[in-house]
Amino acid sequence: MFKKILIANRGEIAVRIIRACKEMGIKTVAVFSEADREALHVQLADEAVCIGPAKARDSYLNMENIISATVLTGAEAIHPGFGFLSENSKFARLCEDCNITFIGPSAESIEMMGNKSKAREIMIKAGVPVVPGSEGRVETIEDAINISQEIGFPVMIKASAGGGGRGIRIVRGLEELKKAFETAKNEAKNAFGDDSMYIEKFVENPKHIEFQILADSYGNTLYLGERDCSMQRRNQKIIEEAPSALMNHKLRKKMGEVAVRAAKAVNYKNAGTIEFLLDKNGDFYFIEMNTRIQVEHPVTEMITGIDLIKEQINIAAGKRLNFSQEDVVLEGHAIECRINAEDVENDFRPSPGKIEFLHFPGGNGVRIDSAIYQGYTIPPTYDSMIAKLIVHGKDRNEAIQRMKRALEEFVIEGVKTNIDLHYRLLGEEEFLEGNYDTGYLMRILHR
Amino acid sequence: MFKKILIANRGEIAVRIIRACKEMGIKTVAVFSEADREALHVQLADEAVCIGPAKARDSYLNMENIISATVLTGAEAIHPGFGFLSENSKFARLCEDCNITFIGPSAESIEMMGNKSKAREIMIKAGVPVVPGSEGRVETIEDAINISQEIGFPVMIKASAGGGGRGIRIVRGLEELKKAFETAKNEAKNAFGDDSMYIEKFVENPKHIEFQILADSYGNTLYLGERDCSMQRRNQKIIEEAPSALMNHKLRKKMGEVAVRAAKAVNYKNAGTIEFLLDKNGDFYFIEMNTRIQVEHPVTEMITGIDLIKEQINIAAGKRLNFSQEDVVLEGHAIECRINAEDVENDFRPSPGKIEFLHFPGGNGVRIDSAIYQGYTIPPTYDSMIAKLIVHGKDRNEAIQRMKRALEEFVIEGVKTNIDLHYRLLGEEEFLEGNYDTGYLMRILHR
Repeated sequence: MFKKILIANRGEIAVRIIRACKEMGIKTVAVFSEADREALHVQLADEAVCIGPAKARDSYLNMENIISATVLTGAEAIHPGFGFLSENSKFARLCEDCNITFIGPSAESIEMMGNKSKAREIMIKAGVPVVPGSEGRVETIEDAINISQEIGFPVMIKASAGGGGRGIRIVRGLEELKKAFETAKNEAKNAFGDDSMYIEKFVENPKHIEFQILADSYGNTLYLGERDCSMQRRNQKIIEEAPSALMNHKLRKKMGEVAVRAAKAVNYKNAGTIEFLLDKNGDFYFIEMNTRIQVEHPVTEMITGIDLIKEQINIAAGKRLNFSQEDVVLEGHAIECRINAEDVENDFRPSPGKIEFLHFPGGNGVRIDSAIYQGYTIPPTYDSMIAKLIVHGKDRNEAIQRMKRALEEFVIEGVKTNIDLHYRLLGEEEFLEGNYDTGYLMRILHR
Repeated sequence: MFKKILIANRGEIAVRIIRACKEMGIKTVAVFSEADREALHVQLADEAVCIGPAKARDSYLNMENIISATVLTGAEAIHPGFGFLSENSKFARLCEDCNITFIGPSAESIEMMGNKSKAREIMIKAGVPVVPGSEGRVETIEDAINISQEIGFPVMIKASAGGGGRGIRIVRGLEELKKAFETAKNEAKNAFGDDSMYIEKFVENPKHIEFQILADSYGNTLYLGERDCSMQRRNQKIIEEAPSALMNHKLRKKMGEVAVRAAKAVNYKNAGTIEFLLDKNGDFYFIEMNTRIQVEHPVTEMITGIDLIKEQINIAAGKRLNFSQEDVVLEGHAIECRINAEDVENDFRPSPGKIEFLHFPGGNGVRIDSAIYQGYTIPPTYDSMIAKLIVHGKDRNEAIQRMKRALEEFVIEGVKTNIDLHYRLLGEEEFLEGNYDTGYLMRILHR
């Protein structure tokens, strides 16, 4: 086992990793930017090294400085957390070249999954369902009709040169397609100077369902159940839960086995997440793989009793998973609310600043992963997530009631937060029924 | 189900009960003494009523004021917590007379278990092993020899009129008995004016093992595994764990079934605890029953997933237990450290005062039950326990490592605490081996 690990991250995930290391008897090295001198991860680690100015590209993204800090402190491995360098294959390769263990998958796996069109190809080859669509450009209206009838309406017509939601048309039938295709082509030509089009199945009101994967170096790849991350604002998850209220045993097994197949197709090692869209018919489609630990990993930990960070470290150290798929039993229900320092009333503008008073909720079934403390000044430089409030209950209803009472107890003064929004969402009928989709939050925010 | 419950207590247990009520959708009424105006339980409850001056006998023990507050606020039930009026049969009866549900056993059950010699008789009749001894006084040396040979050496010779450890002699053989009996009689005559003596088996270096019981009003009485509470200073528990490191499945079943028999013998309803001494041979002896929830109940909650306070409320509301003995599965290992505001270096003198800075530990598997907050002034009037730090791990080793790292993170400034002592104890060989007995802590404190 490693004697010393460097954590190439900040905030709550750095604290989370330090905690796991301490419990495993592993020494820790924190790195920090000039803006993070007072940060909790710096205080909790055994050693701490300043790696540059506040801006991430000068510190938390500065590969050379991080490698230097690792060599300097004699750490044998780097845990990248999430964000920053966690899905950077160049960094993973650099670690390898420097004889430092990167706690995550191989550079090759990161690359394969990082290139979206390549990943799509690999998944199709592996028999993993992807969102059906034209493989390549659709030139003529005849081709458009053939493809649309093959994959079934509704479909999306997408301009190849479009992006960020621009140049997309949703079409629900043949007549509409005939009209829309030519118009869309003309528009694309005018807007982007390129009239080539793709067609893809439009997955209506999908749920975002993702499967946690653990894979060791001995061919053991397991799924640890799903997380429902459909509560999103502009593709940012804000509430996650496990299991999904709409999941059943049969579908879980089916999706879980597909997720394992997806991971195996890229020779995946360590913890990873296969993200799917799940539609109302129970059809599901691979969208991408996150080749790292995720923000929402605690909900899986709560229902499985498996410490994912410790498993990551064990796997990276060459240990074999000491449980099998049958040993993974889901107990009760867990919910995570991401507590952000932001002004919900002002278009969710970040609200950094000094925390004048802080009181965390506690008691049965309540977990807090956070790096803040009373008197701490949240810098404006980084992500606005300042705490994850996680609850575990014997069933979904208990978890919801527990989260509500925990949110009620949570006091932060000095900065604005989204605590009230969470409280409101937990009382909404669609949330209570569990059938909210990825568009739900944006719809009710503008209600 | 009740619409409103009054909590006749203060501190962390009042907060604990309020949390459970909130999660069940039940309104809460806090009561508080004049010293507790700023207390957290007052802030968290839906309503709060002042019931008198700081001294407990004028407020938290003032039955009339508490009943008045209940009637005044329209609460239908009283949860007494632990301590104060929780084992007062007169109060339980008063509630009954006033048509208020006392969340606990009947006044009769409390009385039967509250009278130690009566309880002993009932237990013997029910086939529950008690510490063997002379039933009544031992007059002559011949009787003393007969009884001692029957129950087996070592035995304790106790002066009937003694108390607080005075007038007790431990005797390990026949010759020693012959000498000691007459001497002890003479001493007792001189010291207490009464030379009548008892003889009882001396249980050497026992473990304090207690079984959590839940009993509904339909004849269902279950045991929820054991807690090892052998880490005691002057009979005050300071670390508790579940399960016990020395327990095995067979003995657990045997002791659990005896505990259920003990509870049934007094027609017990609600949550209760049967306390045993367990010796090195695996022989165990009933010592007493606590007819209330206990400080250390969270360790049982962590390994069973059962919320004991909610079960108490459900049972008192006439609900049936919705699980059976077979459903009670013990998962992993839990440890509780009682964090006291006390000066360990100065004979554990209480250390009340203002909390100038507070930072609770968090993360995976960490639970905090507490009623303190930064800026709160701990009054000198009540118990010195200010927080319970509870951890849950997949096994005992993980729980110990987790507790150590949580203790490291715990920061309280302004008052002295026993956090460092806990940290030290968790590293002691006897604790790590799990075979510490009830005398262990006192021995190492004076090492």
